Amino acid sequence: MVPIICIVGASDSGKTTLLEKLIPIVRDRGYRVGTIKHDAHGFEMDREGKDTWRHRRAGAQTIAISSPAQVACIRVTTAELPLDELAARYFWQEDIILTEGYKRSHYPKIEVFRSAVEPQPICRPEDNLIAVITDDAIDLDVPSFRFDEVSGLADFIEERYLKERKRQRILVSLDGKKLPIKDFVQDFLIGGIVGMLSTLRGWKNTRGIDIHITLEER
Amino acid sequence: MVPIICIVGASDSGKTTLLEKLIPIVRDRGYRVGTIKHDAHGFEMDREGKDTWRHRRAGAQTIAISSPAQVACIRVTTAELPLDELAARYFWQEDIILTEGYKRSHYPKIEVFRSAVEPQPICRPEDNLIAVITDDAIDLDVPSFRFDEVSGLADFIEERYLKERKRQRILVSLDGKKLPIKDFVQDFLIGGIVGMLSTLRGWKNTRGIDIHITLEER
Repeated sequence: MVPIICIVGASDSGKTTLLEKLIPIVRDRGYRVGTIKHDAHGFEMDREGKDTWRHRRAGAQTIAISSPAQVACIRVTTAELPLDELAARYFWQEDIILTEGYKRSHYPKIEVFRSAVEPQPICRPEDNLIAVITDDAIDLDVPSFRFDEVSGLADFIEERYLKERKRQRILVSLDGKKLPIKDFVQDFLIGGIVGMLSTLRGWKNTRGIDIHITLEER
Repeated sequence: MVPIICIVGASDSGKTTLLEKLIPIVRDRGYRVGTIKHDAHGFEMDREGKDTWRHRRAGAQTIAISSPAQVACIRVTTAELPLDELAARYFWQEDIILTEGYKRSHYPKIEVFRSAVEPQPICRPEDNLIAVITDDAIDLDVPSFRFDEVSGLADFIEERYLKERKRQRILVSLDGKKLPIKDFVQDFLIGGIVGMLSTLRGWKNTRGIDIHITLEER
């Protein structure tokens, strides 16, 4: 599965600004970057009066719009989609996902900390905090970078999550919830599935396989 | 696979207006409706200055934003995603997808036709035209509905694509391109895959299974 790193911090600590500096550096090193913004309060993505807005107002649950340069999709939900599921559904070509927010997730976190904004960091190392970006003098037992050291932070991320990462090669979700699979079982599943598919007319060597199965209610 | 029906017609023929009438009727009958708008010219979904807009400008390839009530996702593409792939990637809970546009697709089409807008329909029955919505007197050898007969059109769609449809229960994509699979092979694949997965700790009876496999380059 693509590595996910959460950029967390108090409001106005500078999470988006950090991402604006970090994304182009990681991208320029040849990695495809995806981002997920956590929005607790709701957002307005579409514009009133547009065709897609009209589809939604009429009651469509998922609305997509596609052009040669981009695709956008809005899905009406009854509860927040878990970060796992968001990553699995929407990010199939990225090498890394950087989130803005998700401080309560179990994924590795980088905190943006300014003592002028918040008296102390919102994360502790035991929250899977892996680094801090700050110009303050704090010591949290994790690597610390100054705001002018974003390329050092990119080195850290690359070394730890991009260069050597063991690619999880099969991701299985049951009703959108990730099924944990041990390494040797992954090999077994991939071998079995590719073995079956490769006997079919239309099979070709491929880099990515996606399978959706719908079972009857039982 | 979820049935896809394309609402086509000349510009200003009233495609969006038809969808605004059709979607709530289909939805009120208990079906979940998705829509896809085909946009040849490009669109602006995000708003300048918003965090997601800043992520994108910084070079993120896919940007999602998630709140309890909705999720939105924008993907930067180098070529238009095929309708097949859009449907498979973004619509996993819908019972039907209605598109606005896609007159050149091979999917069933309903044309909105007004002789005041265009001298003749843009589709012929051999283009997989299945119905026409018009107040004009034309005869195209396909069912024709007036603009005040949208519930009749909904009956037609329900009868033909929703009630009796044989659910395609496994959808396999190789690098995003759909692999055609015969019915009996579907049973074989589903049996094999569910058989393997159901031996794993963490397996549970489920309605939907999604599998993503990444293979090394060969």
